[in-house]
Amino acid sequence: MLRVGMLTSGGDCQALNATMRGVAKSLYKSDKEVEITGFLNGYRGLMYEEYRVMKPSDFSGILTTGGTMLGTSRQPFKLMRDPDENGMDKVEAMKSTYKKLKLDCLVVLGGNGSQKTANLLSEEGLNVIGLPKTIDNDLYGTDMTFGFQSAVDIATNAIDCIHTTAASHSRVFIVEVMGHKVGWLTLYAGLAGGADIILIPEIPFDIKKIADAIKLREAEGKRFTILAVAEGAISKEDAALSKKELKKKRLKNADRYPSISYEIGDILSQETGVEVRVTVPGHTQRGGAPNPYDRALATRLGAHGAELILNKQYGRLVVLKGTEVTDISLSESAGKLKYVDPESSLVNEARLVGISFGDK
Amino acid sequence: MLRVGMLTSGGDCQALNATMRGVAKSLYKSDKEVEITGFLNGYRGLMYEEYRVMKPSDFSGILTTGGTMLGTSRQPFKLMRDPDENGMDKVEAMKSTYKKLKLDCLVVLGGNGSQKTANLLSEEGLNVIGLPKTIDNDLYGTDMTFGFQSAVDIATNAIDCIHTTAASHSRVFIVEVMGHKVGWLTLYAGLAGGADIILIPEIPFDIKKIADAIKLREAEGKRFTILAVAEGAISKEDAALSKKELKKKRLKNADRYPSISYEIGDILSQETGVEVRVTVPGHTQRGGAPNPYDRALATRLGAHGAELILNKQYGRLVVLKGTEVTDISLSESAGKLKYVDPESSLVNEARLVGISFGDK
Amino acid sequence: MLRVGMLTSGGDCQALNATMRGVAKSLYKSDKEVEITGFLNGYRGLMYEEYRVMKPSDFSGILTTGGTMLGTSRQPFKLMRDPDENGMDKVEAMKSTYKKLKLDCLVVLGGNGSQKTANLLSEEGLNVIGLPKTIDNDLYGTDMTFGFQSAVDIATNAIDCIHTTAASHSRVFIVEVMGHKVGWLTLYAGLAGGADIILIPEIPFDIKKIADAIKLREAEGKRFTILAVAEGAISKEDAALSKKELKKKRLKNADRYPSISYEIGDILSQETGVEVRVTVPGHTQRGGAPNPYDRALATRLGAHGAELILNKQYGRLVVLKGTEVTDISLSESAGKLKYVDPESSLVNEARLVGISFGDK
Amino acid sequence: MLRVGMLTSGGDCQALNATMRGVAKSLYKSDKEVEITGFLNGYRGLMYEEYRVMKPSDFSGILTTGGTMLGTSRQPFKLMRDPDENGMDKVEAMKSTYKKLKLDCLVVLGGNGSQKTANLLSEEGLNVIGLPKTIDNDLYGTDMTFGFQSAVDIATNAIDCIHTTAASHSRVFIVEVMGHKVGWLTLYAGLAGGADIILIPEIPFDIKKIADAIKLREAEGKRFTILAVAEGAISKEDAALSKKELKKKRLKNADRYPSISYEIGDILSQETGVEVRVTVPGHTQRGGAPNPYDRALATRLGAHGAELILNKQYGRLVVLKGTEVTDISLSESAGKLKYVDPESSLVNEARLVGISFGDK
Repeated sequence: MLRVGMLTSGGDCQALNATMRGVAKSLYKSDKEVEITGFLNGYRGLMYEEYRVMKPSDFSGILTTGGTMLGTSRQPFKLMRDPDENGMDKVEAMKSTYKKLKLDCLVVLGGNGSQKTANLLSEEGLNVIGLPKTIDNDLYGTDMTFGFQSAVDIATNAIDCIHTTAASHSRVFIVEVMGHKVGWLTLYAGLAGGADIILIPEIPFDIKKIADAIKLREAEGKRFTILAVAEGAISKEDAALSKKELKKKRLKNADRYPSISYEIGDILSQETGVEVRVTVPGHTQRGGAPNPYDRALATRLGAHGAELILNKQYGRLVVLKGTEVTDISLSESAGKLKYVDPESSLVNEARLVGISFGDK
Repeated sequence: MLRVGMLTSGGDCQALNATMRGVAKSLYKSDKEVEITGFLNGYRGLMYEEYRVMKPSDFSGILTTGGTMLGTSRQPFKLMRDPDENGMDKVEAMKSTYKKLKLDCLVVLGGNGSQKTANLLSEEGLNVIGLPKTIDNDLYGTDMTFGFQSAVDIATNAIDCIHTTAASHSRVFIVEVMGHKVGWLTLYAGLAGGADIILIPEIPFDIKKIADAIKLREAEGKRFTILAVAEGAISKEDAALSKKELKKKRLKNADRYPSISYEIGDILSQETGVEVRVTVPGHTQRGGAPNPYDRALATRLGAHGAELILNKQYGRLVVLKGTEVTDISLSESAGKLKYVDPESSLVNEARLVGISFGDK
Repeated sequence: MLRVGMLTSGGDCQALNATMRGVAKSLYKSDKEVEITGFLNGYRGLMYEEYRVMKPSDFSGILTTGGTMLGTSRQPFKLMRDPDENGMDKVEAMKSTYKKLKLDCLVVLGGNGSQKTANLLSEEGLNVIGLPKTIDNDLYGTDMTFGFQSAVDIATNAIDCIHTTAASHSRVFIVEVMGHKVGWLTLYAGLAGGADIILIPEIPFDIKKIADAIKLREAEGKRFTILAVAEGAISKEDAALSKKELKKKRLKNADRYPSISYEIGDILSQETGVEVRVTVPGHTQRGGAPNPYDRALATRLGAHGAELILNKQYGRLVVLKGTEVTDISLSESAGKLKYVDPESSLVNEARLVGISFGDK
Repeated sequence: MLRVGMLTSGGDCQALNATMRGVAKSLYKSDKEVEITGFLNGYRGLMYEEYRVMKPSDFSGILTTGGTMLGTSRQPFKLMRDPDENGMDKVEAMKSTYKKLKLDCLVVLGGNGSQKTANLLSEEGLNVIGLPKTIDNDLYGTDMTFGFQSAVDIATNAIDCIHTTAASHSRVFIVEVMGHKVGWLTLYAGLAGGADIILIPEIPFDIKKIADAIKLREAEGKRFTILAVAEGAISKEDAALSKKELKKKRLKNADRYPSISYEIGDILSQETGVEVRVTVPGHTQRGGAPNPYDRALATRLGAHGAELILNKQYGRLVVLKGTEVTDISLSESAGKLKYVDPESSLVNEARLVGISFGDK
């Protein structure tokens, strides 16, 4: 009997269910007898022994469903070593559950922080397989995470919708896109949506350069300007501040500016005299059904994860490299973020078609 | 030669272009020689003689495009009688342009306010045909306005996306839906999206009843609750205030609460102790391509409008009644809003399936 | 204890699950104790006692899912009075199951034929409520059936896709649309998709008039022509044949012409010398997730059905009239089809914008 | 003055306009004075001097539109060396137009055959840049062609729609997917759509193995089976035939079997006794608006193409490698097809999750 635990951790995204289906179908189709235990609400379920034993039918009909049937929770890596509110050692609790259930392996669907914890558990002696989840696409070591392209679709649709309104009313519109500390989602959605200005954390902006870009468009007779702004976008000034100073500044402005886009919008309308509207699609970007790209990718990643389990190759993170699904060690990825390189061909191509990053 | 002026007025929405195409194709196909003049940016273009003479090819390929190719602007009815900033009489200016261009008719695509102005121009002696535009569906005299069902699609998609996240994280989510002073959009999107609680202006809410409804769902073992909240939703308390008092109160809270949903969310999280997240799809709801329903409706409305022009039946608003496209006099509709009737079968059906309106 | 049986009958369509959810949620939310029995595969399940007792959770999460969780089958009305292959009396068998399970009511989600059987069972003394299902929109007595607008979306998308190819390659394209013996689906999808020629059963065509319409478009400098052809479209010649003669003719041509579109396409390419391509989206039109329109309508229809049950008003078909959900007697609808009226404003509007019906 | 010719060749697909926009925007944004000449209907326009000089505004608003604004035509490579029906030498005619218009470069958006011609023109001394178009994804040298992911979306949607019907009616369904001689589109759509059996040209099938796979699913209690069948799928028997024999056999069966799926369906229903339905989405797969993935990719490819022109690097085909846009020589790609490798991880992953390729 092969006993496999499974959990989904961190912010939810599209194709979590599709990925679990890929793992499960592959395990059930193998010549092994397999029992899959699903932990509820991410690492919480592993800590507090909240789980259910899955049936094959649980994995049917979920290729196209959003969210995660196991639930999820955010368990920050930096708190993993701290005891919980009752003094319980979290890592020991997880190890204990793993052993109690006689698991052969734990499958973790998660992003950056979650895979850091996966690596920790691997170092603590558990057999762990990581699967690369996140709409942010910031997981180090993989070309693509599942969830990302579905989120690109939603963010792009938002820009598309705003486009027609902007064109009808001659205005400046900001669409704030998710992505945490990186600009992948904003950059791809901005390219796909035909944004005129794209602001990402990796390229701090100068508000005057943005105003210039808007004025240039007006001078060229364009009726409107669309900005795709990453939630993590930052001005050159703010980028020069210490983490502490920045936090303080943001706290001070929290009421006036619920997010960076409102601050940019406010300053821009003062600078340019043009009405600036902000749209924040927010959590819709991680919701809804996965798109076909993600469904195929998730199935592939899941199948490869199952193969690693069947081959007893543990401590691995399943990744996409080019068009191939393969794997790297969890430790290779842990603790690193994959950023947009400002000198990359991707950024260069965006500049070529005339997109301003507000930096020059 | 039949000379027809055309303008799109007020907030933009889906199927404006499709409706203009319906009018134009029908006119060009008639046995009359036809010249169509498109006024730019709504009534502004008529006031200031900003227009372009359209070609048949201008109306090709626009059945599926969002926004309005003529541009639009908001010209509040209540300011129509006031002179503009240069002392110009707006109504006289519009009449003058109409006469100067020797128009036989003016076609106005607009919602409530815009049709009030259309009626005014009709009373002033111009030949006017109104076409019922608005995502709010609040135009008196028609069962349906074009733009509405496309907006329902977008608002519903937003709720769908939030659904999967809410289910994954066990939270309370508010999706704020447009609709101005009426609840049509929120009610239909809430029904279509499976919202648990729907708040609309026509049924003032009691925040305690909403908290009760959330607690009831928790007691039933439901992991999450979704509220679809109209931008015009109002509490029983606020509904009892005078317009002036309400305005004062809202101004005071403007910084803390960018919109009603944030206020509800804030109070609810205090009342229930549950984390409440607010999502505001905003302007995306009036953007993007029209859906097939609106494209067929717009074509029908436009064709009927053209028929009225060819028959010299002026002063009419084209409307949908049941499955028939017909017309009423502009004066019959002017100045009235179409509200959701709290006693209607529609509201009753929503209550039957267990949706709470937060009122009892 | 209120015991309610439920079945879905005939061809599947979108929003069957959403409608059942509407009924079930409303019943469970009432003050009655309710038990719902779901019969499998339509009337078959009622005949052969194949069913499962449903749980409230069975109706959760199905608002957005396609198909029917109960399965369906085609049981032609004209065979209902005949014994089955083992000599069993079908009607008696259904009555017997109903009585054995002590049902208070049977809810039938079905189209024309299925509602005829529902009426028969009602006449035989069972308490029956009908819910108006079909992508064809041909059920007499209701303005709209659930499934129809979702099918319009899919058929329109197919026309949209063909549009870009037709424009790129300068060809004549036929898109064959479902709809059984009526033209609703083709007419609405044709209007929404901007078809140039629409052929429906209610308006028999003359192939020469179609060729003329294509040549006229060429003469006007249009690169391509799109025909939306109902699967039930018929030529004037064939419409003049007896049913028997027509069947004979069609059988003879069955190999050469899998469906009417291929025959039209073949003759047209001979008549016009232009390459004609046929696309048949087929069963995709009844599949996939219901659109928001249908989800709201289905919920409303289901809730009203539940209300009828709670009020013990049986023998009724739930219908939409204008914007109101109401009900008529099953016998009023039974045996009649709702056809497109060739003299209706709908057809008139299509003609106005220049659409040819191939008849003149 | 930099003079650039541009044409779109072969079957149309999504993102042709987006790609041209990427090239044009980048050229116009450069410090060069640029004139773009668009040849009409592919190489035909270059042969017969049918073109129009483009304006910058021609490239606005086309990021999201389907088809090609220049029109296209199929000009098989193997006929390029033959004179046309008037005895004109095609290659010389194209060179002559190129010289007459004093072009600095010709940009060719096309697939396999079209890039072969592009390479030929390059060898003949013209400056040529190729951009990798095709829904088939069979162009050698690039990881991805534009159009492919949009086609995956449409084919997957078709499978999704059929899924709900198949599940409701307990049937075997075949969805025939495009892809010419390769299986990429079928394989990705099949993975994304959850097909049970996938048949592609690269893995010839044994009809008995397919029947076995269907029976196995029945034995496992599954109500239905979905086959995704590539239009180029082939049986082991047929694969063993000579090209001539195969052509003869297919011609003989052309009336009975419009395409391979009908043949498979016919034999399967005989073998298994189960009703088999065939759906052929056909040309819809190359139509409609490009998806966000393709819009971003097209923009990047186009920008890189422009950069090559500005750098005077000719004779290159723009390609995607991993996540980087780069280029290879036209001659490296010409004459080779990119096939699915039956031993690849992609096929392996599909097999792992239980998908049968009908071969064993």
